[in-house]
Amino acid sequence: MIIVMKPKAKQESIDRVRAIIEEKGLYAHISAGHEVTIIGVVGDKTKLMDQNLEIYDEVDKIVAVTESYKLANKKFHPEPTQVKVGNITIGGDTMVIMSGPCAVENRQQLLTTAHAIKKAGAHILRGGAYKPRTSPYAFQGLEEEGLSYMKEAREETGLPVVCEVTSLDAIESAVKYVDMLQIGARNMQNFYLLKEAGKTGLPVLLKRGLSATIDEWLNAAEYIIAEGNPNVVLCERGIRTFETATRNTLDISAVPAIKSKSHLPIIVDPSHAAGVRAYVKSLSMAAVAAGADGLMIETHPDPSTALSDGPQSLTFDQFENLTGELGPLVKLLGKSL
Amino acid sequence: MIIVMKPKAKQESIDRVRAIIEEKGLYAHISAGHEVTIIGVVGDKTKLMDQNLEIYDEVDKIVAVTESYKLANKKFHPEPTQVKVGNITIGGDTMVIMSGPCAVENRQQLLTTAHAIKKAGAHILRGGAYKPRTSPYAFQGLEEEGLSYMKEAREETGLPVVCEVTSLDAIESAVKYVDMLQIGARNMQNFYLLKEAGKTGLPVLLKRGLSATIDEWLNAAEYIIAEGNPNVVLCERGIRTFETATRNTLDISAVPAIKSKSHLPIIVDPSHAAGVRAYVKSLSMAAVAAGADGLMIETHPDPSTALSDGPQSLTFDQFENLTGELGPLVKLLGKSL
Amino acid sequence: MIIVMKPKAKQESIDRVRAIIEEKGLYAHISAGHEVTIIGVVGDKTKLMDQNLEIYDEVDKIVAVTESYKLANKKFHPEPTQVKVGNITIGGDTMVIMSGPCAVENRQQLLTTAHAIKKAGAHILRGGAYKPRTSPYAFQGLEEEGLSYMKEAREETGLPVVCEVTSLDAIESAVKYVDMLQIGARNMQNFYLLKEAGKTGLPVLLKRGLSATIDEWLNAAEYIIAEGNPNVVLCERGIRTFETATRNTLDISAVPAIKSKSHLPIIVDPSHAAGVRAYVKSLSMAAVAAGADGLMIETHPDPSTALSDGPQSLTFDQFENLTGELGPLVKLLGKSL
Amino acid sequence: MIIVMKPKAKQESIDRVRAIIEEKGLYAHISAGHEVTIIGVVGDKTKLMDQNLEIYDEVDKIVAVTESYKLANKKFHPEPTQVKVGNITIGGDTMVIMSGPCAVENRQQLLTTAHAIKKAGAHILRGGAYKPRTSPYAFQGLEEEGLSYMKEAREETGLPVVCEVTSLDAIESAVKYVDMLQIGARNMQNFYLLKEAGKTGLPVLLKRGLSATIDEWLNAAEYIIAEGNPNVVLCERGIRTFETATRNTLDISAVPAIKSKSHLPIIVDPSHAAGVRAYVKSLSMAAVAAGADGLMIETHPDPSTALSDGPQSLTFDQFENLTGELGPLVKLLGKSL
Repeated sequence: MIIVMKPKAKQESIDRVRAIIEEKGLYAHISAGHEVTIIGVVGDKTKLMDQNLEIYDEVDKIVAVTESYKLANKKFHPEPTQVKVGNITIGGDTMVIMSGPCAVENRQQLLTTAHAIKKAGAHILRGGAYKPRTSPYAFQGLEEEGLSYMKEAREETGLPVVCEVTSLDAIESAVKYVDMLQIGARNMQNFYLLKEAGKTGLPVLLKRGLSATIDEWLNAAEYIIAEGNPNVVLCERGIRTFETATRNTLDISAVPAIKSKSHLPIIVDPSHAAGVRAYVKSLSMAAVAAGADGLMIETHPDPSTALSDGPQSLTFDQFENLTGELGPLVKLLGKSL
Repeated sequence: MIIVMKPKAKQESIDRVRAIIEEKGLYAHISAGHEVTIIGVVGDKTKLMDQNLEIYDEVDKIVAVTESYKLANKKFHPEPTQVKVGNITIGGDTMVIMSGPCAVENRQQLLTTAHAIKKAGAHILRGGAYKPRTSPYAFQGLEEEGLSYMKEAREETGLPVVCEVTSLDAIESAVKYVDMLQIGARNMQNFYLLKEAGKTGLPVLLKRGLSATIDEWLNAAEYIIAEGNPNVVLCERGIRTFETATRNTLDISAVPAIKSKSHLPIIVDPSHAAGVRAYVKSLSMAAVAAGADGLMIETHPDPSTALSDGPQSLTFDQFENLTGELGPLVKLLGKSL
Repeated sequence: MIIVMKPKAKQESIDRVRAIIEEKGLYAHISAGHEVTIIGVVGDKTKLMDQNLEIYDEVDKIVAVTESYKLANKKFHPEPTQVKVGNITIGGDTMVIMSGPCAVENRQQLLTTAHAIKKAGAHILRGGAYKPRTSPYAFQGLEEEGLSYMKEAREETGLPVVCEVTSLDAIESAVKYVDMLQIGARNMQNFYLLKEAGKTGLPVLLKRGLSATIDEWLNAAEYIIAEGNPNVVLCERGIRTFETATRNTLDISAVPAIKSKSHLPIIVDPSHAAGVRAYVKSLSMAAVAAGADGLMIETHPDPSTALSDGPQSLTFDQFENLTGELGPLVKLLGKSL
Repeated sequence: MIIVMKPKAKQESIDRVRAIIEEKGLYAHISAGHEVTIIGVVGDKTKLMDQNLEIYDEVDKIVAVTESYKLANKKFHPEPTQVKVGNITIGGDTMVIMSGPCAVENRQQLLTTAHAIKKAGAHILRGGAYKPRTSPYAFQGLEEEGLSYMKEAREETGLPVVCEVTSLDAIESAVKYVDMLQIGARNMQNFYLLKEAGKTGLPVLLKRGLSATIDEWLNAAEYIIAEGNPNVVLCERGIRTFETATRNTLDISAVPAIKSKSHLPIIVDPSHAAGVRAYVKSLSMAAVAAGADGLMIETHPDPSTALSDGPQSLTFDQFENLTGELGPLVKLLGKSL
């Protein structure tokens, strides 16, 4: 931690800050510059957590020099983490494809989809049983009934299944049916939910919040890991910007940024990012080339009648065409599909 | 709802869309323009909710012409709503000032603050017992113990109290102690929490999400009202932008925008918006002049030792100075403090 | 300037950075922390401008501790600047109202407007003769003909006039006709234009760029002042965010932020910020209460036929009503209209 | 164009809008819905350009159904455009690599770079002689001297050269030396400059503005094409968002979005987008996989002493390594490097 004093700060102001630092048993390194004095804090700065140094006279700003997340931080855990979901490993040599409908609508829709995506090469089935929807009048999901279809689909196809949870109730139901919990973008800073998901020990797919910084996202992951659950997979799904040609702006740079800051695997959801079916293939190719560990792609037997996010869903033919095109690229990068 | 077809769309594509609309018992009004054909849907468009018309061949875009929120919509409820919190009415002639610490830290801190803000003219005491913090290592709140101090402060001062809730557990505790529930920015689209808060019947202070549009915010209010609880007060607390001189960007236009779109009262939180104590007075004056129904301002006996958000908190002297300056402005606008 | 090294940086990496600093005749203050080492640079850091220290091995980040603008900086020029435009002083006791049409359309429109706004209490006439328009097919302005009407309006009414310039050609014409040059939002970082405007010595109204930070804005002002022209007035006109209820998001916090960082006057343009006539009054009141030195408000004899930005323009009656309401507020703040 | 009336609009309000439309010789198609009436305008809507229909009583909103750009629009020009720069074709089978320093610093630096990038497989040399810099105290470029080195580098290596222009003066000089003009992000809406660049007939590389929408970007291209110059290449270089882990957020979706809306070629500049050397390879791979027609990558003989943007520049070794890795990917996509 560095404290930057205002230009020409009085000696007594500097001394006051030094005194507070030293009272906590830390060492204050003073650099008296031409224009400003800066004070470096040497020692365990958590001892200063009950102090708001910005408040003191003539303090200009405080600059953090270390990240607040530790368990999710590559600096303290340089080896990449691999997360097992059923028999599938995310973060290893396989480019993991998750696919399925935005919302589970009925048994038939889900089972048909599960078989179709398996045939096309997907590894994990996704499907929403608890749907966070902007309007209370939109379809809210089948809840536990939807979870039971997910389990049935796994039994029929062998594909592990992932499902979003939006409350403690939903977690308590989901652990009986699914292989991986998903925390959605709107709940990325629902810290209560993060802790409860962490406690289950199940792998957690943590989507980035609509306007979350990468730093906040890794701090959200820290909440889960701090409960003793290291099985976190990050999912970039687009951030909110001024651009309206796409539903969100896919932050493709998040892939190399996460790879440089964290050891956690990262997958990309081009369907939610684009919101437009026609861009999904291009963004999928980009995500794989950028170094993502997997993709999450929405599919539906009949997108025109989907109860949620139809316009961005692929038909089974389109999905099979996509995995066909991804194959050679994945191979070129030394991975397998 | 309007469907815009692509330029030179084939007649069969237009006919297909028309057929779907008519199948649902609605009427399709076709306008064949020079460049494009547009189709207006006449009738109850909720009948089309299971259709994703964007998917059909040669459909260019769908334009919604009505808002998805109804109960929060001024068009269907033109009279302004007044919300009672204890003996205080928000949305009437009083400019309601809520104040208190970001986090309840101990009994002494809270009681001292309650007395000080009451003396300075505040109407409602705020204080956080469940703190959503970016890092799991930051102070998370006193939980039920904090709530009990809030209740004690009300008993001592007569000020109604408001407290943030972050889970169903927290709601179940809070209803025993407080007069108003707060849904924080990070939970604005925690729809499960909105519904549970709605069910309590207590007034709800709904903060705007970090990157929520006004439309999404009013839809979040709709979730609460749809549970039979019309007592919603909106709170603008700044949105996330690229600007870093302030913690968030206070969207002052939200005040007139909400007043034109909704009947719900709106207050402004300049402390969280600015993140900088020195800007709080200027933003408070602006909010009052723009037509807000109240303010929420952080105060602390000793901001330099506050466990949360010290740099934006006012001392009691600063707060009393602020209410002193607000008085004549409030009076000029025909309201009372 | 502070250099933060990566955790556990090798001594030789630290020594290399120190050597570069010392080679330039500066002093490197080393703080060896528990986790990281930080290096404070003491002395005239412009000597390091040809070095990209971020590039060196194990350098984590560089933190600037002083702003790059000097002439616009309150730290080095604490007294507020007053800018004279004709007989009007901006930044003093008068709340300066600029008003007029977005675009000068013809002689009659401009003269009618000039008389009407003068009667309603405006101090300066605005009007665009060079219009930067998103589409090349939109009305581009009357150019020099428009400038001549501006001059005529000044002669008739005595109001000083301000006009946007978009090229060196436009500046060369404008200096013959107007009292103040305006640099529009789209040209805020057209550095060539800033320098040329600076050279004229005329007062310059510098609008904030659509997504300019306050720091970039003050650096743009620095370009003008560095040409020997201290007569710069800043104009906040809304920034670009995800919100679509308004055309831009008025950053009201820019008023206190500029007041704390710079000595330059700042006015607010609620018309361009909102893009909606109905919000102009509310935002004008907010801007005045926040401490702005003036307002720029669009007016038009018949907004429904305006060639540019009609929807946000006020009629003369609406404008007169607005200045009537602003009067008591301005007086309350100790200023005059 | 569609006009949406407010709910329960009076018949006289609807009739007034219809009258205005019909006065202009257009046809108004009225759809009286359950909640609102919508009016479709049939005919050449440019006849309505001097009308601000939003202003009329009970008009709720105006929805444009066609884009304002025509010459840049794929709807009216479905074949992809190829742009010749010297002997290089952009938009064809070659993945065109532009490379070179951010700023031309001296003859030696530029010639060394030109030879090095040619050897590594680049097709076009970039180099800035007029540098738009946030601060007036930063290096502003060698101007015409820099242009002369660019020409010399072309003569020595045979590589066509591209250089940014920031004023009419700069254009007048540049046409004597370079093969392609670049309009930088900060000047994307400097419409005067766009027109002047268009008039030269030289190919123009048009960078996206810092917060420009895709629609505004294509309208900027329209300004150039409308001068009779169809040789426009778009360059995505990142947009401004709240994320600070990268200098800008590369909007990779712009690649498929431009491909679906326009016939113009699009290249990607990962160096400016990321601002961090370590992310350039990952973003380059992503851009190629997403379907970009080329890349612009900064290189420098010694990034640590670069006068501009050193931290994002690659060394020659790094650049050669990058083109080596791109080769197989480009080939897989059926193109050549």
